[in-house]
Amino acid sequence: MADPIRIGLLGRGTVGGAFAELVAERADAVEAATGRRPEISGVLTREEGDFGAILERSDLIVELIGGTDPARDYVLDALRAKRPVVTANKQLLAQHGEKLFDVAREAGVQLRFEAAVAGVIPIVRVIQESFGVTEIAKVFGIVNGTTNFILTEMAASGAPFEQVLTRAQELGYAEADPSADVNGADAAAKMAILARLAFHTPVTLDEVAFEGIEQVKPDDIAYAKELGLSLKLLGVAERREGGISVRVFPCFLYAGHPLAPVEGPFNAVMVEAPEITEVTMSGPGAGGVQTASAVLGDVVSILSGDAPVHETRQRLPIVTDIASSFYLHLAVADRPGVLAQVAQVLGDKDVSVKSVVQRGVGDDARLVMVIHECLESRFSAALEAIDSLDVLRSPPRAIRVIEEEFA
Amino acid sequence: MADPIRIGLLGRGTVGGAFAELVAERADAVEAATGRRPEISGVLTREEGDFGAILERSDLIVELIGGTDPARDYVLDALRAKRPVVTANKQLLAQHGEKLFDVAREAGVQLRFEAAVAGVIPIVRVIQESFGVTEIAKVFGIVNGTTNFILTEMAASGAPFEQVLTRAQELGYAEADPSADVNGADAAAKMAILARLAFHTPVTLDEVAFEGIEQVKPDDIAYAKELGLSLKLLGVAERREGGISVRVFPCFLYAGHPLAPVEGPFNAVMVEAPEITEVTMSGPGAGGVQTASAVLGDVVSILSGDAPVHETRQRLPIVTDIASSFYLHLAVADRPGVLAQVAQVLGDKDVSVKSVVQRGVGDDARLVMVIHECLESRFSAALEAIDSLDVLRSPPRAIRVIEEEFA
Repeated sequence: MADPIRIGLLGRGTVGGAFAELVAERADAVEAATGRRPEISGVLTREEGDFGAILERSDLIVELIGGTDPARDYVLDALRAKRPVVTANKQLLAQHGEKLFDVAREAGVQLRFEAAVAGVIPIVRVIQESFGVTEIAKVFGIVNGTTNFILTEMAASGAPFEQVLTRAQELGYAEADPSADVNGADAAAKMAILARLAFHTPVTLDEVAFEGIEQVKPDDIAYAKELGLSLKLLGVAERREGGISVRVFPCFLYAGHPLAPVEGPFNAVMVEAPEITEVTMSGPGAGGVQTASAVLGDVVSILSGDAPVHETRQRLPIVTDIASSFYLHLAVADRPGVLAQVAQVLGDKDVSVKSVVQRGVGDDARLVMVIHECLESRFSAALEAIDSLDVLRSPPRAIRVIEEEFA
Repeated sequence: MADPIRIGLLGRGTVGGAFAELVAERADAVEAATGRRPEISGVLTREEGDFGAILERSDLIVELIGGTDPARDYVLDALRAKRPVVTANKQLLAQHGEKLFDVAREAGVQLRFEAAVAGVIPIVRVIQESFGVTEIAKVFGIVNGTTNFILTEMAASGAPFEQVLTRAQELGYAEADPSADVNGADAAAKMAILARLAFHTPVTLDEVAFEGIEQVKPDDIAYAKELGLSLKLLGVAERREGGISVRVFPCFLYAGHPLAPVEGPFNAVMVEAPEITEVTMSGPGAGGVQTASAVLGDVVSILSGDAPVHETRQRLPIVTDIASSFYLHLAVADRPGVLAQVAQVLGDKDVSVKSVVQRGVGDDARLVMVIHECLESRFSAALEAIDSLDVLRSPPRAIRVIEEEFA
């Protein structure tokens, strides 16, 4: 009988605990699939365990501590000691990926991290393995379940952001400190990882521009509904003008868009390439057992055979000023000529209107428009000019739109 | 520099031609990813080429002939000669999978077949690799793009099956001989493969019960719309009562179901398991370059490292009489007491009604019902009893429904 595979487990939080249980529960299946029976050879927590001793008696390290310090040192030490590593740590990969991949490659051991992005959706494997030589044009989607839950609830109830956030916390869909989720930073780390894999180019976290959903107002969602739009927090990594753009931003989608029906704490990621058209994958974005399941899948893959470690193939520049479509919400004085005045400013800046809804609200009016794709710098200039009009009742509110209407 | 990887290509139809082009186009990327440059070392067509000679000068065989004869012998010969094989041949896998896997395992070479199921959606890899030790409960979805295109068009236009089929043929979404697509046999072969992989049990094509869409009437689709239902040809492989059920059948879905928005020639597959909840993958179901892309992905995987060949881990019985929900369409005489009579028969057979729509049509009426889940044998008995009522104007029409309403 083959030796068991001794797994050193770093961290025993929600995911770590679920992973230890899943290993015991699936030991027979892992043995049937790989010929080796998994066992947890040591657990490191803040309170107990010695990393060096655990490393010594482990064949493989599973890192589920989170954060970059001390996780980074543990993972680097494990790789240098020629132990393959599985991690669910998106910050570690997003901030120190290049170094980790280099060390893993030099050591000739695998570094797998399916659970770091989009929970149980096997997007890392699919991009790296199925589409490893595909000329990917764009990877984008909903990679944060907390914000998708909040936006879904805001759309359904009409309640404001703060109130829905509290409800999400009560239900366990948002953490006690939700800032990294709601401000887009969490999604940005995931998009840095996906962009690197999709385009084989180094992408660091500070190159990802991100906006969150804290500023979204219930009436933006309500007005946009009339235009057939629903709001998502999107992560987008795409080729643009010889470089790539990697961003996270709230975005309206038309009803026919494949991501429009993704609701609640779900994630969904689309991959576009000329030779595949598009592939969409969706599933729960988080959860202890779901994440543990993705970690175990990586362990099984490591036991099943060699696989190359990610390697930089090119260095693509980050393009920051790109063309986008926008939803524009203006609170204006309700008097003749206001629409003409706004339209004049937009026209002067060469910004073109796709659709408009105007409605009286007491003495004021709301102008809600969708703007055709134009360079974001040009749109910003138009926004500034509109903001200086004396008919404006409050600063203009703009949210990006994916204009493409699907059949 | 490493030796090139010499690919022997069997077949040069739509997919074969696209594959040869893609190999040339992506040679640099394959070399960057694997260290070896791919080249086509020989092409076998009906008109030219000698299989033995091609095998001799190839490191790897790509089989894109289709059908089982002579594809089966070629693939077996290649495996025995220790050449890894990539095939897109669903019939070959569905009918001779067990034998092929055994020979590949004995020879110690890989046999990959991503393109055999669901086009460019990497469902084979995800089930085998990401979910290889997951206790999968159910794999189901839309695995035939031709029928999904036809059903989408029927729903949109109200036109009858034959007319829409002709249009699908004109557009290239249906073949000159569409029978295997429209009668469900094509989907059945794919579900036999997916069931085997998901449950690690032998499943032969003749164990898959299948029905097609030839009998679907425009008014079934129209009436079902009033009940909030849309029609898909589903393939379902699921655990049931200690065994598995593998079937293909037209099925109504409620609007909130993740597969309901999948329209046109697209495929979509869902995987359900307690530890993953559910993962849905969708994309184009066919197309030359899309299929070629999946084949090339398999070639790259073979070059990237060892991977285990599928192996039977258990032998699960096929359960044939399972519980289902049904849509039931009855053309009846429009006179008092008819609904009561029908309801009486259903009640006597212990079949319970979930919803009903009744409408007068000239001297007749239509009764359209959704029946709660019950054993199919019990439902058939009820159907027979209803058919013998003298108020029936034509034989009852029944179509399965997935009753679950998603939030």
